[in-house]
Amino acid sequence: MEKIRPLIWNGESLLLLDQRALPQEEIYVHCRSAAEVGESIRGMVVRGAPAIGVAAAFAMVLAARVIAFSPDINDGNTFNWPFFLSKLVETGVMLKNTRPTAVNLSWGVERMLKRAEELTGTAPLEALSQLEELACHIYEDDIAINKRIGEYGSTLLPTPCSILTHCNAGALATAGYGTALGVVRSAFKAGKEIQVFADETRPFLQGSRLTAWELQQEGIPVSLIVDGAAGYLLRSRRINCVIVGADRIAANGDVANKIGTYMLAVLAEKHNIPFYVAAPRSTFDFSLSSGEEIEVEERGGEEVTHLKGVAVAPPGIGAINPSFDITPASLVTAIVTEYGIIHHPDRAAIEHFFASKGGNS
Amino acid sequence: MEKIRPLIWNGESLLLLDQRALPQEEIYVHCRSAAEVGESIRGMVVRGAPAIGVAAAFAMVLAARVIAFSPDINDGNTFNWPFFLSKLVETGVMLKNTRPTAVNLSWGVERMLKRAEELTGTAPLEALSQLEELACHIYEDDIAINKRIGEYGSTLLPTPCSILTHCNAGALATAGYGTALGVVRSAFKAGKEIQVFADETRPFLQGSRLTAWELQQEGIPVSLIVDGAAGYLLRSRRINCVIVGADRIAANGDVANKIGTYMLAVLAEKHNIPFYVAAPRSTFDFSLSSGEEIEVEERGGEEVTHLKGVAVAPPGIGAINPSFDITPASLVTAIVTEYGIIHHPDRAAIEHFFASKGGNS
Repeated sequence: MEKIRPLIWNGESLLLLDQRALPQEEIYVHCRSAAEVGESIRGMVVRGAPAIGVAAAFAMVLAARVIAFSPDINDGNTFNWPFFLSKLVETGVMLKNTRPTAVNLSWGVERMLKRAEELTGTAPLEALSQLEELACHIYEDDIAINKRIGEYGSTLLPTPCSILTHCNAGALATAGYGTALGVVRSAFKAGKEIQVFADETRPFLQGSRLTAWELQQEGIPVSLIVDGAAGYLLRSRRINCVIVGADRIAANGDVANKIGTYMLAVLAEKHNIPFYVAAPRSTFDFSLSSGEEIEVEERGGEEVTHLKGVAVAPPGIGAINPSFDITPASLVTAIVTEYGIIHHPDRAAIEHFFASKGGNS
Repeated sequence: MEKIRPLIWNGESLLLLDQRALPQEEIYVHCRSAAEVGESIRGMVVRGAPAIGVAAAFAMVLAARVIAFSPDINDGNTFNWPFFLSKLVETGVMLKNTRPTAVNLSWGVERMLKRAEELTGTAPLEALSQLEELACHIYEDDIAINKRIGEYGSTLLPTPCSILTHCNAGALATAGYGTALGVVRSAFKAGKEIQVFADETRPFLQGSRLTAWELQQEGIPVSLIVDGAAGYLLRSRRINCVIVGADRIAANGDVANKIGTYMLAVLAEKHNIPFYVAAPRSTFDFSLSSGEEIEVEERGGEEVTHLKGVAVAPPGIGAINPSFDITPASLVTAIVTEYGIIHHPDRAAIEHFFASKGGNS
């Protein structure tokens, strides 16, 4: 059992650890329908690319149950599979529209839809059971994948090692172990002397609220800095590497991740410090040839003008609030996946890597 | 009369517009002694290199009055000048220790001390009056200097012009017009089409609280971004130039300014966007050969772990909170001073520039 459980499936509903309330309060939001899960994703009760992919899978289970017992499902005496599937597709569209940038969301939805299609003609209760099983498998698999990422990534770190990270690519961003912080966890468990510096990550403060809390729970040394202090830290050479997660990686290795990531990559290059991205295969989107094609979510300006509900800017001031930025592959030293490490990622290296590992889509 | 008056000298005390309370409240802190001014500088009631230099000058006036009327001042029947001067020096040390990085603070103190020494032997009331006159002159001169900086700087800006700025180098950081924002003001008054993007500037939020408010008062279009979004903005090429102020400039042109400035300079270089520093001659410190010698103030971690008194990080998490960083001269496109513009600043260019303008120390 993992210590930090951002998502709990109790067989009837999905409990989401409310990441808006952390670290002051550890409360769970009970989602009893796909719509409630969708609202929780949009409102950032749950966030982090892998975590929202897993949440979406369970949302599809909740939707499938409702659809399977709806009055319209029986076509005469038979279960109306086309109706069932088309309603599930509608749910999937709703879920995918909650947040556009992280590809794992759409990946989770698509995996569930594919399975539902394959189940066409099966006894309905059996089909529902198999869908639930797949969602649980996606959940368990996410943790297993993160642990493999952690093991591979750990080999990149010297000891002692000072690491700068951004946002939260930890247990809270996944089913329970973390990508970037999975690497940190694995290195720490392997006995390496680790010191993490966490950007606070405005506007949502994932660094100070989530990463600091999560590492504190594990006893891993962590210090906070404001986002603007990263350059100072990297220039003073107290940092061995930068490790971040990813929300979507294009076929050429361009990385969409939390706003502020690109700045770190530019600074790391300037100071010859390795810049690592830790992400599962499911974060790669081979349908996009470059990062230019990745849609960057723009969230409301009030996240910038307000802090915890308190206005910091004068009334009437507008804000631009892109939630992600794109880091070109040329600035990425390596991408750590569950299949191993892609050094100097570019289109050819990524293609060759996954082909050799049997992990191509 | 300037619209925004961060410091008001009423002949008996110094009123400081409380920059911790802006933009929600416009209240003045009354400082009746040098110690009160010192506390206000340390606590950031007043901040910004030129503004704290002016505040320090008035603090010296307040101290001089107390010392001149203290019981120990009469040596027999004569005014004890050595006692007067040594007590003033003590006050100066106290003031300079409130914040170490901005050189203008020490510059303001030293100017007052020098005048006091020159006045040795004068009738005491006349001396006090002349010290007050000098402080008022420093105040008025700061505004005049900023307006000259603004005029020179304005010539660098195209129209339309999108400007990214950091922290607050505006009226609130000076006696009343601003250095970086003085350039913006002058360009706007000259009819140029100006759009300002302001980094919010954590931890003290000078961007969202002060710069946004100040530009809004003047009707100059301004949009906020989180500090981490600067890279996104510069990469999307919506920005014509970056303009910031400075807290201390070494003889070789290295610039100490608010934490986060260095990141912007690196990003501006990466994107071939001009990076301008606007600062008066008094911000240059020719006693330091490079930025490596500039002391960077580290403030308390609670500025990072808390926001407006509300904890954002879990209890027990430490934070590193350097208040400034150093931008090497090689990243600075030009420094705009009241004497004109120093292009591609380096030791030779700066020396030659001030020698030719008669502004060398």
